[in-house]
Amino acid sequence: MTEARLSSAEALARLRLARTEGIGPLTFRRLLVRYGSGVAMLAALPGLAARRAAPFTLWPEAEARREAAALAELGGRFLFLGVPPYPTLLALQEDAPPVLALLGDPAALAPRAVALVGARNASAAGRRIAESLAEALAREGLGVVSGLARGIDAAAHLGALRAGRTIACVAGGLDLPYPPENAVLQARIAAEGGAVLAEAPLGTAPLARHFPRRNRIVAGLSLGVVVVEAALRSGSLITARLALEAGRELFAVPGSPLDPRARGSNDLIRQGAHLTEGVEDVLIHLPEAPGPARPVEPRLGQVQGAMVEEAAPDSPEPLADADQLLELLGVAPIAVDEVVRRCHLSPSAVQAILLDLELAGRVELLPGNRVARTGQA
Amino acid sequence: MTEARLSSAEALARLRLARTEGIGPLTFRRLLVRYGSGVAMLAALPGLAARRAAPFTLWPEAEARREAAALAELGGRFLFLGVPPYPTLLALQEDAPPVLALLGDPAALAPRAVALVGARNASAAGRRIAESLAEALAREGLGVVSGLARGIDAAAHLGALRAGRTIACVAGGLDLPYPPENAVLQARIAAEGGAVLAEAPLGTAPLARHFPRRNRIVAGLSLGVVVVEAALRSGSLITARLALEAGRELFAVPGSPLDPRARGSNDLIRQGAHLTEGVEDVLIHLPEAPGPARPVEPRLGQVQGAMVEEAAPDSPEPLADADQLLELLGVAPIAVDEVVRRCHLSPSAVQAILLDLELAGRVELLPGNRVARTGQA
Repeated sequence: MTEARLSSAEALARLRLARTEGIGPLTFRRLLVRYGSGVAMLAALPGLAARRAAPFTLWPEAEARREAAALAELGGRFLFLGVPPYPTLLALQEDAPPVLALLGDPAALAPRAVALVGARNASAAGRRIAESLAEALAREGLGVVSGLARGIDAAAHLGALRAGRTIACVAGGLDLPYPPENAVLQARIAAEGGAVLAEAPLGTAPLARHFPRRNRIVAGLSLGVVVVEAALRSGSLITARLALEAGRELFAVPGSPLDPRARGSNDLIRQGAHLTEGVEDVLIHLPEAPGPARPVEPRLGQVQGAMVEEAAPDSPEPLADADQLLELLGVAPIAVDEVVRRCHLSPSAVQAILLDLELAGRVELLPGNRVARTGQA
Repeated sequence: MTEARLSSAEALARLRLARTEGIGPLTFRRLLVRYGSGVAMLAALPGLAARRAAPFTLWPEAEARREAAALAELGGRFLFLGVPPYPTLLALQEDAPPVLALLGDPAALAPRAVALVGARNASAAGRRIAESLAEALAREGLGVVSGLARGIDAAAHLGALRAGRTIACVAGGLDLPYPPENAVLQARIAAEGGAVLAEAPLGTAPLARHFPRRNRIVAGLSLGVVVVEAALRSGSLITARLALEAGRELFAVPGSPLDPRARGSNDLIRQGAHLTEGVEDVLIHLPEAPGPARPVEPRLGQVQGAMVEEAAPDSPEPLADADQLLELLGVAPIAVDEVVRRCHLSPSAVQAILLDLELAGRVELLPGNRVARTGQA
């Protein structure tokens, strides 16, 4: 695998920006496109931050250095968006994490991958299906991605580990394995040729809001997602929706209507997921590359909200050139293209002003190139 | 319900023709169209039969009278193709039985109906699903059709019987309930507002070849067929294919990949059957009327063969005007339209000659308006 090492100044700049409250993945990506490097972003930030009533709390350099040292101590390293071996499929996602912490072998991120997800309270039969399907997929040379949760996730990792091809995405920090009983499994994955990835800083105990963020990484890493057992309204279905949005294939293992754990996966099949009994069902439908991203379904509104960083306290000070744009916006998201059509500014000027407004906490930039006011005056 | 009674001479003529070896449902229907009545068919038959080396063994009048008396003794009656209360949906099938024997209430044949079929060695869970789904469908006012077999069939009848709306199609004669343990269920269906139908004459012990014939009636009576548990290559899948051919909707209840009894139904879903967990899944997709008939799939070849009457011993005597047509035919079926295009005869002349040739045992007329030589010189 081609690897590229960032200079330590660039790596440190990117880490500090990624860890800064108020700069989410979408903003980070837009700033990176605008300024070209983490170092340049960092240089520009005081100017942007000055426009806010509550000044930007840039993540302290000392903290970043401490985290980098602690990660190296654990035997891990950082991966930076767009820099190999950062996973290329994940980088296609507009809200891809700017920085990931990795334990294990970066080569594990190279193969085409499939995610297996499902119920934490899985049945013994469901776990058996997940384990054997994961092993079969891994023996076909595919990476098997899951979330290191109880039940289906753990079974999938165990099965895939027999062929040494598994990727665990965890919701908290790499130093706080969750659930605790899977600490041994996490260590085995890192030691036996697999990879463990975390978006959250070391020391982060996983909270509810971290799980949808983790799920988007699981979906983003994979050409397809297989749902093994999932109740209605379960986290696995969120991963399934995120996969569809990202243009990835969706697979589901059917179950008896009498088993409530099969409701969600049966429902996915009803809605068009590929019915999956074994490895052949996945291989037949797995594409070479993801399809186009699809529009966000309304049912996902709350998930989407959870994935977008909360707006920082807002500035009462008016922004140059921005009042006109703010007039055009409401709290309901609209397409940025629509905003461009309705004003006299060029598309790039609109994008630049919206980015300023987001850094100022006045608007939220949303996936699908949409924008909304935060509701703060 | 509008009822029409045939004259006893017409009824007797139709019954004799239907019971005659060498006149299958397709031939019967074509003769009925040509001659207009059973009495006229009977009058024309000696001329047709004389062309055969082995003369037609027309079913004896005394036998037909004996069967009619025995059926009346059982409390049953005959239904004749195209004459109310013969089921109108079934009559759409080109190979619909010319005569059916009925026990129970003819009014049970009136409502829109759905078939529930599945494994004889069904699991307890499968039987529970069939029973509750059948009851729910019946409470929605739908007739529930099945084959009175062990397992899923019996469970479906039991459930639907709670709402008094079930139709059993049996493979043998009405006086020989099969399997014997379902004799009580058959009697209950007839006594409690349901209907039991048989194509075979009284006294017929059901043989393997009767079951595909029975299955085509189950499919033909129904707007849709629900497969509850079915292994690969099971009889229920034949019913499913017949339903698709006849333009009926197909439904299947999913099951775990670890359960071999779910293989067939999962495979049907994979091929496009509606995934069915409960009554709503059926109601949403059940049409007002069947769709167009679809072409026979190659996999069904042997079933199709079993449904077409065996050719009677053949006549070496050449048939007037027919040699040219025979030259055009092979043992592989071709469309009658194709035959018309390749000869100088009118479509109606071709149809008439082919009918003669079929009665002479030289060709087989097949569903889908296709024809093949019997292979006999």
